[in-house]
Amino acid sequence: MPRKDGRGLDELRPIRVTKDYIKYAEGSCLIEFGETKVICTATFEDEVPPFLKGSKTGWITAEYGMLPRSCETRVKRNNPSGRTQEIQRLIGRSLRAVVDLEKLGERTIKIDCDVIQADGGTRTAAITGSFIALAIAFDKVKEAGIIKSIPLIDYIAAVSVGKSENRLILDLDYSEDSSADMDMNVVMVGEGQFVEVQGTAEGSTFTKEEMDKLLNLAQKGINQLIAIQKQNLSGIDF
Amino acid sequence: MPRKDGRGLDELRPIRVTKDYIKYAEGSCLIEFGETKVICTATFEDEVPPFLKGSKTGWITAEYGMLPRSCETRVKRNNPSGRTQEIQRLIGRSLRAVVDLEKLGERTIKIDCDVIQADGGTRTAAITGSFIALAIAFDKVKEAGIIKSIPLIDYIAAVSVGKSENRLILDLDYSEDSSADMDMNVVMVGEGQFVEVQGTAEGSTFTKEEMDKLLNLAQKGINQLIAIQKQNLSGIDF
Amino acid sequence: MPRKDGRGLDELRPIRVTKDYIKYAEGSCLIEFGETKVICTATFEDEVPPFLKGSKTGWITAEYGMLPRSCETRVKRNNPSGRTQEIQRLIGRSLRAVVDLEKLGERTIKIDCDVIQADGGTRTAAITGSFIALAIAFDKVKEAGIIKSIPLIDYIAAVSVGKSENRLILDLDYSEDSSADMDMNVVMVGEGQFVEVQGTAEGSTFTKEEMDKLLNLAQKGINQLIAIQKQNLSGIDF
Amino acid sequence: MPRKDGRGLDELRPIRVTKDYIKYAEGSCLIEFGETKVICTATFEDEVPPFLKGSKTGWITAEYGMLPRSCETRVKRNNPSGRTQEIQRLIGRSLRAVVDLEKLGERTIKIDCDVIQADGGTRTAAITGSFIALAIAFDKVKEAGIIKSIPLIDYIAAVSVGKSENRLILDLDYSEDSSADMDMNVVMVGEGQFVEVQGTAEGSTFTKEEMDKLLNLAQKGINQLIAIQKQNLSGIDF
Amino acid sequence: MPRKDGRGLDELRPIRVTKDYIKYAEGSCLIEFGETKVICTATFEDEVPPFLKGSKTGWITAEYGMLPRSCETRVKRNNPSGRTQEIQRLIGRSLRAVVDLEKLGERTIKIDCDVIQADGGTRTAAITGSFIALAIAFDKVKEAGIIKSIPLIDYIAAVSVGKSENRLILDLDYSEDSSADMDMNVVMVGEGQFVEVQGTAEGSTFTKEEMDKLLNLAQKGINQLIAIQKQNLSGIDF
Amino acid sequence: MPRKDGRGLDELRPIRVTKDYIKYAEGSCLIEFGETKVICTATFEDEVPPFLKGSKTGWITAEYGMLPRSCETRVKRNNPSGRTQEIQRLIGRSLRAVVDLEKLGERTIKIDCDVIQADGGTRTAAITGSFIALAIAFDKVKEAGIIKSIPLIDYIAAVSVGKSENRLILDLDYSEDSSADMDMNVVMVGEGQFVEVQGTAEGSTFTKEEMDKLLNLAQKGINQLIAIQKQNLSGIDF
Repeated sequence: MPRKDGRGLDELRPIRVTKDYIKYAEGSCLIEFGETKVICTATFEDEVPPFLKGSKTGWITAEYGMLPRSCETRVKRNNPSGRTQEIQRLIGRSLRAVVDLEKLGERTIKIDCDVIQADGGTRTAAITGSFIALAIAFDKVKEAGIIKSIPLIDYIAAVSVGKSENRLILDLDYSEDSSADMDMNVVMVGEGQFVEVQGTAEGSTFTKEEMDKLLNLAQKGINQLIAIQKQNLSGIDF
Repeated sequence: MPRKDGRGLDELRPIRVTKDYIKYAEGSCLIEFGETKVICTATFEDEVPPFLKGSKTGWITAEYGMLPRSCETRVKRNNPSGRTQEIQRLIGRSLRAVVDLEKLGERTIKIDCDVIQADGGTRTAAITGSFIALAIAFDKVKEAGIIKSIPLIDYIAAVSVGKSENRLILDLDYSEDSSADMDMNVVMVGEGQFVEVQGTAEGSTFTKEEMDKLLNLAQKGINQLIAIQKQNLSGIDF
Repeated sequence: MPRKDGRGLDELRPIRVTKDYIKYAEGSCLIEFGETKVICTATFEDEVPPFLKGSKTGWITAEYGMLPRSCETRVKRNNPSGRTQEIQRLIGRSLRAVVDLEKLGERTIKIDCDVIQADGGTRTAAITGSFIALAIAFDKVKEAGIIKSIPLIDYIAAVSVGKSENRLILDLDYSEDSSADMDMNVVMVGEGQFVEVQGTAEGSTFTKEEMDKLLNLAQKGINQLIAIQKQNLSGIDF
Repeated sequence: MPRKDGRGLDELRPIRVTKDYIKYAEGSCLIEFGETKVICTATFEDEVPPFLKGSKTGWITAEYGMLPRSCETRVKRNNPSGRTQEIQRLIGRSLRAVVDLEKLGERTIKIDCDVIQADGGTRTAAITGSFIALAIAFDKVKEAGIIKSIPLIDYIAAVSVGKSENRLILDLDYSEDSSADMDMNVVMVGEGQFVEVQGTAEGSTFTKEEMDKLLNLAQKGINQLIAIQKQNLSGIDF
Repeated sequence: MPRKDGRGLDELRPIRVTKDYIKYAEGSCLIEFGETKVICTATFEDEVPPFLKGSKTGWITAEYGMLPRSCETRVKRNNPSGRTQEIQRLIGRSLRAVVDLEKLGERTIKIDCDVIQADGGTRTAAITGSFIALAIAFDKVKEAGIIKSIPLIDYIAAVSVGKSENRLILDLDYSEDSSADMDMNVVMVGEGQFVEVQGTAEGSTFTKEEMDKLLNLAQKGINQLIAIQKQNLSGIDF
Repeated sequence: MPRKDGRGLDELRPIRVTKDYIKYAEGSCLIEFGETKVICTATFEDEVPPFLKGSKTGWITAEYGMLPRSCETRVKRNNPSGRTQEIQRLIGRSLRAVVDLEKLGERTIKIDCDVIQADGGTRTAAITGSFIALAIAFDKVKEAGIIKSIPLIDYIAAVSVGKSENRLILDLDYSEDSSADMDMNVVMVGEGQFVEVQGTAEGSTFTKEEMDKLLNLAQKGINQLIAIQKQNLSGIDF
């Protein structure tokens, strides 16, 4: 039995990246995982939050939002939920894993991920697209002579995997996600290690064996996403 | 002395409309006035706010937001200002002027205008685009048999005019708007009457004669905007 | 057909001003437009908001509130609406038009307008009364030697006009305002130019010809209001 | 050594009551204790809060606010403090002591006390004035046939007493209150019993003997306040 | 007729104190008045609130909270009521009465009182326990050499008294409190003077004679509470 | 090199459970993982949230809080952070995995986890203790005849594992947690499957091999925790 949209079990949705989507941001892109569309921007600020003042260390922070009609049912504006908080903490933590914060110095990059249309996998699209916006922003401030080199250590991307109708599948869309017994969001760097593994069953459980198979599936998807990042950032060295 | 972008004093910026931009909304478009980009959606709800329960009358309401990096300087998320409140009240009031609320019956249309990129004139783009989203939504629910006919009375569009560097100009972009001595937002219907005239001087004043000239300029721009609306809504009769 | 209270179409309600109504404020008055009663105070502060620090320029800001039983139906306390925001922005903007902010220097005047009883025209009474409170406050701090001269450029007053039951009328009371097809708030300076024109139809439209007649009506009312301001401020020169 | 304003130790400030001060409220007055001015209104509602639904018992609730410039130093608008909460709970509790809530039936009276000018004793003026507004409101709804009789049991009034500069004094004004070692707010009914005694030392203590003398002083002031209430409510029987 | 739990009219519930209950706080205890359990902590901060900067004077402030299931019916989390505000103001004011704030210097002690289980008298237990936490904290920072001597002037404790079923009783538990005609919270210092007397009738009144008897009852209870404080603070001199 | 507190790498801290700690809650316990102390209560409500009305399905929801001085540095009261939101969502989701929500019917259990003292592992202690409170509550309402049988499917417990100073360790205390390169919270049921695996690196990454070893370590700890749950719930059958 094929997936509704005809994809193979281990196949990503079509991935599209539009670089420099917002003219005012230091770095930006529109990233699409199939029908999921997220605008990612990176804002450079020449200061750090109070808890880092005097530490000679920088910071990456992220915010995540959804337009009211990005979903089938309109969501209330300006009403961030617990889910929102989890996602923006996850995005920030993931990006910090590939940034040399001491090399960045006492500066902050604020990532904004705004979901224009949500069809599953918004947080994984947001992490994957934010990395692109971040790299563009670093390149821009380096060109402007504000930083000397790009303080990136590695690429980073994210994808969801899950168990639905007894099949293990890659990159779940909304209909697959809402009927899944469990799903797992995996964040990996270019070198192949994990930064985050969040496996969650809702009204169900999962075994070690299933988890191992899903991690393999995620690895495959993330390799492809990082290849797309590399194409889009071809002129930027780090 | 020409305008910075080479436009004539009485010339609109390039206007672009992308219909059905968001798949979940009953009606939607992306509208662009030059570099200003606004996503407009119309959500149909089969109920009215409490103050209209039992009135056999419908309602149109609007919300307006800006993505954090839609501006040169990042704006705080989820932090609607007094300006936001003014604009969303203006959008709702304007659209209600061309809807037969009794014919709509006890239903509500919620308009969402989200500014993706702001380069002046976001409220006039929002009104102009929202009318398109509204008409599409009405057409869709009519096709679905939920309403019998489209309860629209007329077209409606909006444009800004103002006095800047001693010249009277049409459709101000951000740099013109921020240096203007006064500006006026004008909302007109297809038949040529006004729904709203908001002339505002900041640290200056204006005469009756200037106001008359600006209203003529606005009329010219609105005629063009309504022509664009008609093209985009060609299959929808009311 | 005469107006309910017997006034002519172009007649203001009885206007009363009680100067120095609140002993603690640098300037204050109670202003009454018929049954509409507003307490206006002006508070002098020897600093400016952050965005003006170092600019050698002052600021005028305003807040507007209604006592819970200032209205027929009790309004919730501490619950400023979008309407409140619009009005306080309008009051501040209007007063700034007649203040030489550079001459004021880095000081702020905070205007508070509190509606004790609301019978239509609260915002126009508030603007008209706030100017009196402002002038008294400037006079007081000048007497105290804190400023050298009064940084006022002109008088300023406001009045509403509208179309109701097919008649164009001046200074609408609440019952006229709530049944009007359109109304317009006009703010003018002593020299006769406009600072603000806000014409708004609710569920209706208006023509250029109607607008012209209404502006004439407004001019007439504002001339009378400024004459009353002059009487009350007779000892204060600028 | 006389008091600053020449009063005797056991003398009230001049008390003034202006009945029916706000035309929309069911009952209202402006009450003045010297320079302290409070607008009190009573709003009748034909329902009770959720916790009393079905109880056949009514409710009296109160809110208290201060205009921003009612004080020497401007206070922030819409920013009720802990002190505000204490005062409005005290006003409600006091009035409920003289209302037969079962006789009132499932109705609520909302009291609003808004301080126009604060010179000490705002809470005692508020309680004393609110009783007048409450009695007028009951009389009005009785006249309208909504209730059969006025559900009042007794008069109620309040006054402050305190120890300042080693003297025991009645009805402290602001300068006396802020330099007092301790002060006590006393609420009594016409029959002479207490409803509330709140004696509070700040950075000091007080003895039983001092407390007894202060309660006598309070009794004297409250007798006078109730006499004034009776004059103002002369036509209302209960 | 004995009290439900067999106590005499003038008998306290069993009082238990567990010192140093929370390892991180400078001072802490768990205090139990029968089934009422309150965790009190004292946090030392080497600065004062803005209004005391430069005054060479310290400050004691308090916060009070209830765990959601400290009550028979679950209370909403993070939702402080007017009652909460009253209680925390009372705790802070009471403790300040026995602290020499000038001797403390520009430091703040933050008291936190968290009710684990509420069976009446939480505010009196909180005051009584907070004094113990405060004294332990002062002793600790004195031992650390941060202050030279303990800036305490006297002991302080609190108890409730009230009239229930026509009897005057000491230390009301929840069932007694909720059926009482009036209750009074009394705060006294070791030397026998009052700091606070809050007598409150709900739907009732009380006489001077009743008040006098209740104050005697309170004195008796407070003497016992201070004896318990002295046992628990035996090694701490001031 | 041993752990600071002398524990083996695969050793839990001393675990203590005090059942029925709060008398008002349907189910409650105090659970201690070493110095970490959490009060868990379960509140039974005979209704479900709006999104489940009419579904014949129940719900388990959770809230999590910390007392201000549960931490080394005082945390602000009533100020839930993103971290709080994540934890309470995790607790609710975990418990729902072992409850047969259809068998529960349209009822809600509200879990409250309040951290009295925090020394690492508060979320895992909260999940482990909440299960005990939940089972006690189910038993109590079953005894009362409100539900016919206990709708539990399995036991559930949680523990943290992590990599610190190049060693893989079980049940991290605060000092270990704050110096760890990565940590993982694992939630498992009695049958041995996972409900949640949250592996998170902060400024670091981890390999598949490390993850496998940590999951083994977690399994070992969870087996011991479930044995303790069984002892404490020995009289309750499901």
